[in-house]
Amino acid sequence: MGKNKPIGIFDSGLGGLTVAAQVIERLPKEDFIYLGDTARVPYGTRSKEVVERFARQDTLFLLKRKVKCIVVACNTVSALALREVKNVSNVPVFDAITPVAKSLSSSKTLKIGVIGTRGTIGSNAYKIAIKKANPNIHVFELACPLLVPAIEEGEISGNLIKILIGNYLAPLKKKKINALVLGCTHYPIIKKEIRAFLGPNVTLIDPAQEIAKTLSIFLSESYSVPKRAKVKRSYFVTDLTERFIKVAEMFLGQKIKSSLKKVDIESL
Amino acid sequence: MGKNKPIGIFDSGLGGLTVAAQVIERLPKEDFIYLGDTARVPYGTRSKEVVERFARQDTLFLLKRKVKCIVVACNTVSALALREVKNVSNVPVFDAITPVAKSLSSSKTLKIGVIGTRGTIGSNAYKIAIKKANPNIHVFELACPLLVPAIEEGEISGNLIKILIGNYLAPLKKKKINALVLGCTHYPIIKKEIRAFLGPNVTLIDPAQEIAKTLSIFLSESYSVPKRAKVKRSYFVTDLTERFIKVAEMFLGQKIKSSLKKVDIESL
Repeated sequence: MGKNKPIGIFDSGLGGLTVAAQVIERLPKEDFIYLGDTARVPYGTRSKEVVERFARQDTLFLLKRKVKCIVVACNTVSALALREVKNVSNVPVFDAITPVAKSLSSSKTLKIGVIGTRGTIGSNAYKIAIKKANPNIHVFELACPLLVPAIEEGEISGNLIKILIGNYLAPLKKKKINALVLGCTHYPIIKKEIRAFLGPNVTLIDPAQEIAKTLSIFLSESYSVPKRAKVKRSYFVTDLTERFIKVAEMFLGQKIKSSLKKVDIESL
Repeated sequence: MGKNKPIGIFDSGLGGLTVAAQVIERLPKEDFIYLGDTARVPYGTRSKEVVERFARQDTLFLLKRKVKCIVVACNTVSALALREVKNVSNVPVFDAITPVAKSLSSSKTLKIGVIGTRGTIGSNAYKIAIKKANPNIHVFELACPLLVPAIEEGEISGNLIKILIGNYLAPLKKKKINALVLGCTHYPIIKKEIRAFLGPNVTLIDPAQEIAKTLSIFLSESYSVPKRAKVKRSYFVTDLTERFIKVAEMFLGQKIKSSLKKVDIESL
């Protein structure tokens, strides 16, 4: 039965665990399989062609494990390679951008900032999707390439992250945006610092929450809630170091009980 | 004839072009083939096993193109996967660490700092090689993981790089080191800022210069200087974006005349 199959979630690395955390919160009875391509992370600096190739391999890995749907946790893949993932997949695919755009369709918010990797921002995927959902919104996109490595190094509250946020977000603050889309899985980790810089009047939109909400609606419409004594959550990575475990737990917000398993997907 | 074959140089990405620049300066008559694995850069955060696999593919790519020797420009590969490269290779292999250690063998310098990626520093390869060459030297190793992404983003002279350098190097300054090994191809780009922080009494050791010197001695002992009207330097990358060309020219210190060619090496 489809309902008992696991959800498949993939990301360029470990940042997508912020999405996994939302899935755990909203859908605690669902099994899932998470894949983080830690051997080739980050995707955000790479070309569309390479991101497409990597995303195809990520998708094929999950499909081989008989997932009932695929969640593209990675914003860069959502922006550059969603068509590729859908072409390969024979199960429903959920991305990061569509639910954010949908959530803004009847919004009166007029000025929205979007921050992300070079790949995400260069594609204008958020801007295109949001404008399509709601032409009244002005969208200001901005690449913040150093936030990901800083967060991965655990620089999430000190002086350095404050300087980076200040430097990057000053132009958006000047434009008096009403809301900011945190268009990379890593950014929710520094939400507090972003909030401190932008002030209380700017709404922070976390795609992970929108993804989990959309997924939850889809599953409740398609299947009944799985009944099982024990939920099985599997975590796969393409490279594993001791440091990755620490970083993974930072993103997941809890201990990873079942261990991270290492797999090779480059030949898929 | 061997002497007319090109030199092979590879790196995890574009930083190795600082080594190519030294080869151009010292050996202007030599052809070379450069490979930067830009689809999977950086290597410095990855496990030994993955770095070995990537390094093997890099090496096989160059060997297929009939190089007369291989220069491992990447410090992380030199530290984690040199044996792998030598196992695969049927031509002489030159790494970044051996010539630095050799250059210090009769040094009276007592306290040396080494900075590099997590991979390079975690391996202790520099410390082991330097202590073997000269047991009197005290070696202080330090990983500086955010310097590479900052330099790749062009942050080479502003406030941010000053803060990073200050934060990272303060402990080495306190130890009153006499010399500092710039154990990553990217660091020569920020030599001026490192110098400004450490002061004029600390010698900065650039492995790229030591590699080129060793290579030059080897070639002059093994072959006569190639006589040719036109030197051919080829640059291959595994991913190509417009940005990469800009970054490449920053590291090479000149325009890349022949264009960057994109190749796929993952199936090697």
